[in-house]
Amino acid sequence: MSDHEAPTTEAPTSETPGDQAAGNDAPERVDQARQIAELEDAWRRTAAELDNFRKQCARDVVRGREQERAAVATSWLPVLDNLERALEHASSDPDSVVEGVRAVLAQAVGVLADLGYPRRDDAGRAFDPAVHEAVGTVSGEGLTPGTVAHVVRPGYGPDDKLLRPAAVVVATRAS
Amino acid sequence: MSDHEAPTTEAPTSETPGDQAAGNDAPERVDQARQIAELEDAWRRTAAELDNFRKQCARDVVRGREQERAAVATSWLPVLDNLERALEHASSDPDSVVEGVRAVLAQAVGVLADLGYPRRDDAGRAFDPAVHEAVGTVSGEGLTPGTVAHVVRPGYGPDDKLLRPAAVVVATRAS
Repeated sequence: MSDHEAPTTEAPTSETPGDQAAGNDAPERVDQARQIAELEDAWRRTAAELDNFRKQCARDVVRGREQERAAVATSWLPVLDNLERALEHASSDPDSVVEGVRAVLAQAVGVLADLGYPRRDDAGRAFDPAVHEAVGTVSGEGLTPGTVAHVVRPGYGPDDKLLRPAAVVVATRAS
Repeated sequence: MSDHEAPTTEAPTSETPGDQAAGNDAPERVDQARQIAELEDAWRRTAAELDNFRKQCARDVVRGREQERAAVATSWLPVLDNLERALEHASSDPDSVVEGVRAVLAQAVGVLADLGYPRRDDAGRAFDPAVHEAVGTVSGEGLTPGTVAHVVRPGYGPDDKLLRPAAVVVATRAS
């Protein structure tokens, strides 16, 4: 708050009542009245600055969100371009479409990872309701009860910034 | 700024120098000294609030961007899911993959439109360097010089919020 430091050097602490000779009290009272007016003015200006800053901040938040939205949306354009490119061979060579689309899927997973949301690999991990959504159970040889036997739909993002949990089938004891 | 209104009712305007009988000036000076101390305190508190709010605002901007990033990234997950689903039929029926991928591409274009960035249809429009990137020229029967003859790579977003310009071939007069 270096710009808004109260001017302590002008504070009235160096004066005490009865400091000067009694008699005509006008000079000190005029000084104090002026000081009061200055302080009120300074206070009002700081309050107005706070008010302006609140409005400014609201605008900054909106603009920050808009910039982020545009930046993230832009990162998907190459995925769309490549998807279109893969489809260009559709009539002549369907098999090459499959290859191309596999590459686009890998690219899309890469875009999410670059944004901070890597694809999760939850198969075989201990089931954790905080990051897994159980959609079924299974039991059988070689399956450890309480672990994720199969990922039905992958999750994205690290544990503390999960975009969505993985939908999983959980291994249980044979009944 | 309702919380930070300067207390005008306490302002010293109702007092003027020489307002009270002269003589012992201590009572008024003590009043004024107290008022000065109160004003300084109020000013300091407002300045501290401004300082805190600056820090708070910086955090709000960062959090707003993070929320936007997560929201926009999440809107792409169904596209990835459907791309994977389309590929599941790859070995048995490549032709159905092509159909599925066309649907996913349309879905992806829809996601961008929902985010505020519709796919542009610039074919036939007057060439405008603000929203078009010329990558070639062509002349021929039925082409209006100065218009977009062909879109090589589509643009996304309205004129005032362009994510990227369309790459276009511009029609010219036959030379």
